[in-house]
Amino acid sequence: MLSLDHARTILDVVLKTGTEKGFKPLAAVVLDARGAMKAFAAQDGTSLKRGEIARGKADGALAMGLGSRAIAKMAAERPAFVAAATHAVGGSLVPVPGGVLILQGGEVVGAVGVSGDLSDNDEICAVAGIEAAGLKADTGA
Amino acid sequence: MLSLDHARTILDVVLKTGTEKGFKPLAAVVLDARGAMKAFAAQDGTSLKRGEIARGKADGALAMGLGSRAIAKMAAERPAFVAAATHAVGGSLVPVPGGVLILQGGEVVGAVGVSGDLSDNDEICAVAGIEAAGLKADTGA
Amino acid sequence: MLSLDHARTILDVVLKTGTEKGFKPLAAVVLDARGAMKAFAAQDGTSLKRGEIARGKADGALAMGLGSRAIAKMAAERPAFVAAATHAVGGSLVPVPGGVLILQGGEVVGAVGVSGDLSDNDEICAVAGIEAAGLKADTGA
Amino acid sequence: MLSLDHARTILDVVLKTGTEKGFKPLAAVVLDARGAMKAFAAQDGTSLKRGEIARGKADGALAMGLGSRAIAKMAAERPAFVAAATHAVGGSLVPVPGGVLILQGGEVVGAVGVSGDLSDNDEICAVAGIEAAGLKADTGA
Repeated sequence: MLSLDHARTILDVVLKTGTEKGFKPLAAVVLDARGAMKAFAAQDGTSLKRGEIARGKADGALAMGLGSRAIAKMAAERPAFVAAATHAVGGSLVPVPGGVLILQGGEVVGAVGVSGDLSDNDEICAVAGIEAAGLKADTGA
Repeated sequence: MLSLDHARTILDVVLKTGTEKGFKPLAAVVLDARGAMKAFAAQDGTSLKRGEIARGKADGALAMGLGSRAIAKMAAERPAFVAAATHAVGGSLVPVPGGVLILQGGEVVGAVGVSGDLSDNDEICAVAGIEAAGLKADTGA
Repeated sequence: MLSLDHARTILDVVLKTGTEKGFKPLAAVVLDARGAMKAFAAQDGTSLKRGEIARGKADGALAMGLGSRAIAKMAAERPAFVAAATHAVGGSLVPVPGGVLILQGGEVVGAVGVSGDLSDNDEICAVAGIEAAGLKADTGA
Repeated sequence: MLSLDHARTILDVVLKTGTEKGFKPLAAVVLDARGAMKAFAAQDGTSLKRGEIARGKADGALAMGLGSRAIAKMAAERPAFVAAATHAVGGSLVPVPGGVLILQGGEVVGAVGVSGDLSDNDEICAVAGIEAAGLKADTGA
């Protein structure tokens, strides 16, 4: 089970990684396996709904059981399916990299969503955070 | 009229077929002619919103009066129409195979939606379930 | 973790209990700890949205971490809070008995919602189902 | 303007206060003046939608420009107005204590929402957090 300690370590390292690499201000969310939010932070300067984009990446990953990079590939190949799935799950599904499943002992225990810079950079931060907490990241690559 | 006995036979055979064929964990729903849920089951290991995807296939089939394979074809040919229809019906319409109408004496008495493996495989399970209950399946092919 | 075997045992005994006691046709749902549906069944003769009422009892129990009998008491004492909480959680929260938490080893692993007869009778069926599966029921009493 | 440093100090002290006082597990959110989330944390053991309740307290405070204790009073005196306002603002407005405005130099710079224990206790934590960050709390009392 994903603890708040895990979640806060993940968030701290996500934001620190973005700052060190000179990325734009990031919003980052950590969800548990239920899709409930454990922790969230938005760096100063993020736009009004940047957090909702980050959340949509993490929600989509949990909804489909796939890192959002895999959902991005699916959206390129089968756009009608991903558009429809987005509606079917209630609207919060953003099919670009940066929604990363958190695995512990082979089981999905949550997901991280990061948004603010290029999607590939957002994903780098998410993975760094998850690994710093001693957990395994699945980006969908 | 679709009875709960019918619906449970359908579900049992859908899930058994998936297991025997080595498909990924499935979520499956049986709706009656009104679009009300008669029965649902999610095998262990399905992702958070897999059931909503299955439901969207069955809802879409009933909404349009077409097996979802026909709606998938329509989405490829007339994407703007299917996107608009999805909104118009409230969002639950997933235009890929696996949403199969149930016919009895030539009349639509419900629909089955299956999701979890490839869409073609999901549809195989749906048809097997409907036929095991002595009813007729319309995939939209 | 709540398995599909657990969920189906619960459903079978919920419906059998209702039939044996001569209750009206029931709709019953079993949710896992994530709030995802594991299993659902509606007996023949249930009204169009009876399943949604059952679901709202189970959703509300998980949302608040309380059997729905406790939420019913809260609704009598603090109606504005429960009305507002209903909106805040997205609308699916029905504050009457019959939404029962499922406990295993002291942990919430899911919830059962039953609707169709008097709320007290709905709850009797939910508890019978949970106990038949060797799990512990928390009605909120 | 409310910085992320402010928000994290607030969150840390909210959760520390709850733990020291032996309160139930808390969910706490800090919103900026725009209603955008700056930071969120849910202690281990919070129920599925506890975070949405906390958010509804903070959203309501910002929506009305009043600490949620004042909105609770309004809900007791004019229930139809508060019910209508809840709809009008989109549903996220929980009229019980624990949604506290954050003031800096006489200006509203954000709001804190806390949920998990009794509403009065939730509010105690929110105020402790805001004051620890060197800001002024307006509970609506």
